[in-house]
Amino acid sequence: MPHPLDEARYALALANRIVAHEGVLDGFGHISLRHPANADRYLLSRSRSPELIEPSDILEFSLDSKLITAGDFLPYGECVIHGEIYKARPDVRAICHHHSSAILPFCITGAELKPMNGLGSVMGAKVPFWDSRDEFGDTPMVVTTPAQGASLARALGPHSMVLMRRHGATVVGATIQEAVFRAIHTHRNAELQLRAATLGEASPLSTGEAEMACAYSLRERPMGRAWEYWTTRLAKAGEMPPKIV
Amino acid sequence: MPHPLDEARYALALANRIVAHEGVLDGFGHISLRHPANADRYLLSRSRSPELIEPSDILEFSLDSKLITAGDFLPYGECVIHGEIYKARPDVRAICHHHSSAILPFCITGAELKPMNGLGSVMGAKVPFWDSRDEFGDTPMVVTTPAQGASLARALGPHSMVLMRRHGATVVGATIQEAVFRAIHTHRNAELQLRAATLGEASPLSTGEAEMACAYSLRERPMGRAWEYWTTRLAKAGEMPPKIV
Amino acid sequence: MPHPLDEARYALALANRIVAHEGVLDGFGHISLRHPANADRYLLSRSRSPELIEPSDILEFSLDSKLITAGDFLPYGECVIHGEIYKARPDVRAICHHHSSAILPFCITGAELKPMNGLGSVMGAKVPFWDSRDEFGDTPMVVTTPAQGASLARALGPHSMVLMRRHGATVVGATIQEAVFRAIHTHRNAELQLRAATLGEASPLSTGEAEMACAYSLRERPMGRAWEYWTTRLAKAGEMPPKIV
Amino acid sequence: MPHPLDEARYALALANRIVAHEGVLDGFGHISLRHPANADRYLLSRSRSPELIEPSDILEFSLDSKLITAGDFLPYGECVIHGEIYKARPDVRAICHHHSSAILPFCITGAELKPMNGLGSVMGAKVPFWDSRDEFGDTPMVVTTPAQGASLARALGPHSMVLMRRHGATVVGATIQEAVFRAIHTHRNAELQLRAATLGEASPLSTGEAEMACAYSLRERPMGRAWEYWTTRLAKAGEMPPKIV
Repeated sequence: MPHPLDEARYALALANRIVAHEGVLDGFGHISLRHPANADRYLLSRSRSPELIEPSDILEFSLDSKLITAGDFLPYGECVIHGEIYKARPDVRAICHHHSSAILPFCITGAELKPMNGLGSVMGAKVPFWDSRDEFGDTPMVVTTPAQGASLARALGPHSMVLMRRHGATVVGATIQEAVFRAIHTHRNAELQLRAATLGEASPLSTGEAEMACAYSLRERPMGRAWEYWTTRLAKAGEMPPKIV
Repeated sequence: MPHPLDEARYALALANRIVAHEGVLDGFGHISLRHPANADRYLLSRSRSPELIEPSDILEFSLDSKLITAGDFLPYGECVIHGEIYKARPDVRAICHHHSSAILPFCITGAELKPMNGLGSVMGAKVPFWDSRDEFGDTPMVVTTPAQGASLARALGPHSMVLMRRHGATVVGATIQEAVFRAIHTHRNAELQLRAATLGEASPLSTGEAEMACAYSLRERPMGRAWEYWTTRLAKAGEMPPKIV
Repeated sequence: MPHPLDEARYALALANRIVAHEGVLDGFGHISLRHPANADRYLLSRSRSPELIEPSDILEFSLDSKLITAGDFLPYGECVIHGEIYKARPDVRAICHHHSSAILPFCITGAELKPMNGLGSVMGAKVPFWDSRDEFGDTPMVVTTPAQGASLARALGPHSMVLMRRHGATVVGATIQEAVFRAIHTHRNAELQLRAATLGEASPLSTGEAEMACAYSLRERPMGRAWEYWTTRLAKAGEMPPKIV
Repeated sequence: MPHPLDEARYALALANRIVAHEGVLDGFGHISLRHPANADRYLLSRSRSPELIEPSDILEFSLDSKLITAGDFLPYGECVIHGEIYKARPDVRAICHHHSSAILPFCITGAELKPMNGLGSVMGAKVPFWDSRDEFGDTPMVVTTPAQGASLARALGPHSMVLMRRHGATVVGATIQEAVFRAIHTHRNAELQLRAATLGEASPLSTGEAEMACAYSLRERPMGRAWEYWTTRLAKAGEMPPKIV
């Protein structure tokens, strides 16, 4: 019988590979998971490209983003994004930070991301915009200090996703499946909004439609069907993470 | 000698995989087939992503979308789309409901989909537009009640394809090959219309050209050549459905 | 020692597969070759999608597009495109007719295709535009009569490529390598011109540059390097045609 | 223990394959490396498409682009690009010349390439523009004479990348990893800038952000993570160069 922590490490490696395989993550970006038994810790890979992550790469951090796992591991420079959001948002159990090619045009132009169809509504009622320049002036465009992470967490507020000006996006979820579902379907919504911009004025969902569609999409059935779909696609590509032995 | 129902189940699994492999269906959407021996029933997979469907997933439904197949199966939430169209259109033997990335920009902007070339003309003389808001106000952007399915069927009317505002499209066919051909080539026509929009004003086929090209394209030869092409591509990718044993 | 006709049939199957693999041909379209020993005949596959063609599919036709090969074979409906051009242009030894996704936006809008870079200049100094409506009114958007083929050949005139309104393109070459090179690199030039249209006014090659670059590109070295590249890519994908035994 | 020159030849073959696999190089374009033991020489493949290059294809040249390696090898027509830049820029140890589909729209329209995000800032503070017409009038759009190579090197000046009007780009690096990183991430920045142009006015990095982000991105950690990522992707695709035996 597998240990819950081992299961969590495997699930996290799998989630990273799924989100990379579906084109949201590339060589950079990362997904974390709150520790299944200790809400004051979170799990995150050592610094490695998401599609390469193995369960043995998963490290344990305090919410102050201090590395707990013993050994000579190099963490991601931006791990504070995860720690500061877990601190501010007890309801959040998984976080994905990425720089998807469909989301970045919104981060660059400031165009508002809006729910274009039912699945896109999982972005939530509002997607706030965070610009590191507002509080920190010129930076190397990475979130590496606790103060920067906390500022981003404040911008996220009670929402499910935050766009980061000239940088990327961070999405959260109540479960790892939800964070993955939200990362992939908001990426696809952005792709749609981009393509529709060629044709004319988009007509997004009404507030009522978006609320109802979001609740409908985050039920067990569609999330389960999508998870089976993404996992099978990953397996067919020969990209599943190695089992923990 | 295979039973006609087994052949139908295999063909339906194959059709789902072809349309997914050609990029029209993704994790969601579905294709159905009228029962080969009983016009008051239709065949549709249990709730599963199209590229994963096996013949053993295919269930039988009444035209009121009651599940006939015994067992503990979870149907798609939107099966009423199929039942209500089969009720209203005795000439229809196959239906594909999808949310293709090329069609959705038209559903979002309301831009009119028009035949751009010979193969695109299989959309038919007119592609009506259905907006769930008109009759049902705010919904979770899915078609789950018989009344919604019947409304969509009325919007489809005698046509071959209906666009669903902020949702996707539903295409029908006199055979499963025709529904597949129409789903794929209208998707490709949409892609072309999108790309052409970057360059200038499109000059669509004339009414006469569209009628003649539609009749020409739906002959046995081009449909057969396309079916061989798509099946071979699927087989080369190692994605054929398992045989019924 | 292989027979020259067998070599020609193999080369023609290979050319069809290369141009399909590089994204110019899809389920439709075709490449032909003038008979190596008899200038009054040409070689063209039976009606089959290009990426599936085998040397044994290659048939022999007169320049009036009468099938010479004995047997029960179904030719392409549009074989007259090839026959009529071979009749009108003794210098032409290979022809590719296609409906590429990058060329079609030009055929739909009438936007002028221009040489954007050195390789794109192989389109030649001018790419004429043929509209079937001018002489034939409403048609099913296919070129199936000798009169239509002859009209297209007149529009092509002494040029290397002709765009067909709402239909596609036909490119010719002095060798099969040249026709393949021209089909692929004009497709890529079209792709570039489309993408550049998003950014602003394109600055095409000057007439002098285009002439010099066309001559430079059609030398043995770049054509040979490209042929090795495309063949190796096809082989790595496991898509080479079967050998003649 | 491998000889440093053998290691350099292997690394250069690998770099060519990586940059091709990531979509920057296609059938044309090339990467060179300054000789590890002799700063007056450089290494460059014989004329071959980048994704096919093997260590045994790597030739040695003087900075005047005379072939030093004995044997009957055909060099690239544009090797002077490399020689003249190595002459002018003692700090440069690797050079990539390419015609990427994302960069070319900038070369065609003259639109200014700007850093859109942290990784894109590796283009440097300024990307100069070189137009062969200015000094050489009509050419076949290739850089084949020492005078042309020297003119391009002057346009590059102290910068890291130069756009070549209606032709492509040349990027340099202090190491081969840096040249590869810059070639790939400036290509991706161009892709982003193109896509953002559909949505509205882009807001590039400030000068301060770009400087800090460039320095941050070119550290060992992100470059190493990217190198592992690209190499693993190449290996998974079965595309690694053969070992030197």
